[in-house]
Amino acid sequence: MASDDGVHRASTFAPVNIAIIKYWGKRDTKLNLPTNGSISVTLSQDDLRTHTTASCSPSLAEDSLTLNNANQDISGARTQACLRELRSLRKELEDADSSLPKLSELKLKIVSENNFPTAAGLASSAAGFAALVRAIANLYELPTSPTDLSRIARQGSGSACRSLMGGYVAWQKGEQPDGSDSVAYEVSPASHWPDMRALILVASAEKKDVSSTAGMQQTVASSALFQHRAEEVVPKRMKAMEKAIHNRDFESFAKLTTKDSNNFHATCLDTDPPIFYMNDTSRAAVRICEYINASHPEVKQYCAYTFDAGPNAVVYYLAEHEDVVAGTFKSIVGDKTGWEGARGEKIKAGQLPEGAEVAADKLKSGISRVILTSVGDGPRKTDKHLV
Amino acid sequence: MASDDGVHRASTFAPVNIAIIKYWGKRDTKLNLPTNGSISVTLSQDDLRTHTTASCSPSLAEDSLTLNNANQDISGARTQACLRELRSLRKELEDADSSLPKLSELKLKIVSENNFPTAAGLASSAAGFAALVRAIANLYELPTSPTDLSRIARQGSGSACRSLMGGYVAWQKGEQPDGSDSVAYEVSPASHWPDMRALILVASAEKKDVSSTAGMQQTVASSALFQHRAEEVVPKRMKAMEKAIHNRDFESFAKLTTKDSNNFHATCLDTDPPIFYMNDTSRAAVRICEYINASHPEVKQYCAYTFDAGPNAVVYYLAEHEDVVAGTFKSIVGDKTGWEGARGEKIKAGQLPEGAEVAADKLKSGISRVILTSVGDGPRKTDKHLV
Repeated sequence: MASDDGVHRASTFAPVNIAIIKYWGKRDTKLNLPTNGSISVTLSQDDLRTHTTASCSPSLAEDSLTLNNANQDISGARTQACLRELRSLRKELEDADSSLPKLSELKLKIVSENNFPTAAGLASSAAGFAALVRAIANLYELPTSPTDLSRIARQGSGSACRSLMGGYVAWQKGEQPDGSDSVAYEVSPASHWPDMRALILVASAEKKDVSSTAGMQQTVASSALFQHRAEEVVPKRMKAMEKAIHNRDFESFAKLTTKDSNNFHATCLDTDPPIFYMNDTSRAAVRICEYINASHPEVKQYCAYTFDAGPNAVVYYLAEHEDVVAGTFKSIVGDKTGWEGARGEKIKAGQLPEGAEVAADKLKSGISRVILTSVGDGPRKTDKHLV
Repeated sequence: MASDDGVHRASTFAPVNIAIIKYWGKRDTKLNLPTNGSISVTLSQDDLRTHTTASCSPSLAEDSLTLNNANQDISGARTQACLRELRSLRKELEDADSSLPKLSELKLKIVSENNFPTAAGLASSAAGFAALVRAIANLYELPTSPTDLSRIARQGSGSACRSLMGGYVAWQKGEQPDGSDSVAYEVSPASHWPDMRALILVASAEKKDVSSTAGMQQTVASSALFQHRAEEVVPKRMKAMEKAIHNRDFESFAKLTTKDSNNFHATCLDTDPPIFYMNDTSRAAVRICEYINASHPEVKQYCAYTFDAGPNAVVYYLAEHEDVVAGTFKSIVGDKTGWEGARGEKIKAGQLPEGAEVAADKLKSGISRVILTSVGDGPRKTDKHLV
């Protein structure tokens, strides 16, 4: 809606998502079409979010995007594809109803802010493109469904399509060459299984091995194991993971999440040259999770770990096991940033499982901060404008 | 042959071998039958060897084995299988020729010494069982071929079968349920391609993640990628590697060696729970190898790295590139043990490739010693007795 200054603006928050069945490999690099489906948990925007305002006015000379006050290059094919598709949808509305202002003809000024440190190495491009697409769709008052918007966001950054919905979200591989059926869908809303928690262990800054964009195509081209993963391993896990979510079956959820993370990193290691995202700190986090799971045999899986294209561990667990899981990590890295605030302060530091001392020391020296969060909802419209 | 004291004794040296197509996984744990074939380079006994004396006399009350002066338990099924088979072959000779002394009825005293530190984490069981089998075969004056002896040594420790021959040695998977065709054969003798060199980067002592015996069966049972490796990936590489050796084609040799090491470690990572043998030091060694290979584009592959079930890198290269490969490593870890002696002293420390500083620093802090060696011959009979 236009304000008094003739500027039209709309704003949104969009969430980060962390995959539990991993996206790695494109069958079409231009359209960002994946070699296999993926599933993620949308994380709460109370903790991690991109805030984006899209605005347009006749006074703007060109499209622009800033992120945390820094100008971003938007001339790339991916951003351009998103802008082109959204303008085209607005144009259809304008053509059908001549009373609508011709926003599709105006330049866009897009301003974004992340509330989490870029150095944290979180997959910020997913939240970023989801927020960009959602904000412009709001500005244009598009009646487009989240599913259709996910098709657009996917062209900006593959995993962005999963940040257009809340809760437990799948991105189906799709079969069409034009990508029209490679979209996200909600497996279950956050309210179906609200007690999912996530503890992110942010590893001390280290130069990233290979960008995920470049890395995944090296894997597709050279790994002797990758095709087997994409064709045989993942499709079965997609079904099993949807079932685990529907049944709120944490044991299956945890086993699948952990196995799929390791399977994905195995294909990275099998790439020529090999890609290493996990480091000795990551492996220490794995071992601590194993110690926690083994510590009380009456519960088979207290927690699951997963690693994206970097060394940070994301540890999933249920609210009822917060003291066992987050408490154990607090006993190890309780002196790092991130335990302040209501969520962190109520967690009691637990006892280190016997034998875990070596892994704990390694973790202590390799982790710079933690982030405590939970499953959350999809993009939230807001009247807080950044323009 | 009996000496004046009535003791019969025979001695041998046996070499270490380092696989270039990896053995990982048994289809029969009792007989040590592998899920796939493997190929190794036999390393020179001038540098690394087990020295074993087998002796027997009527005065011995029981079979015994000492390694580096420490008593070893020989009651295990594997050692017992080797002793039983060798005695049975001796018995056949004695039954056919009654003039032979009845050594098969006497107890054995076996004494072994490794000339390399156990802490180095080298696959000493291969050299150990090869030496044990070869020494007893010498003592019994068995006419048995190295191939037949490899079948016996395999039952002691799978990879031991490859240490009964020199040069480039394959262990064929075999098809028979009784393991009769799961034996080693010589792909090419050391003299066919004598200028193969190996630099072993021994990582600072760290507790081993999982023993290879236990680890490989966890992989067989739980990895979603392992079967594909065993059935599809390795058989093709076995053929390609034999061809590379026959053609003295170092570029193919290096690419296959490197890829197969990474492929093996990928299946370890895909194991539930994941097995990590490579650490941050191992990865630094990988990166240095990549920098060396990229440093002079006119030679496509200066070196190949491979990792067994531990963090030590074994770097293969040709004698003509010693200054480029070993020289670069000398410039990084030249202050560690292992560069003394004729072989190491003649290597000139080279220049660190541009960009390799971070990996070099990591390597410096994680390597405790180096071993310089080369391809070598099979077990050598010796008159130096340890009993």
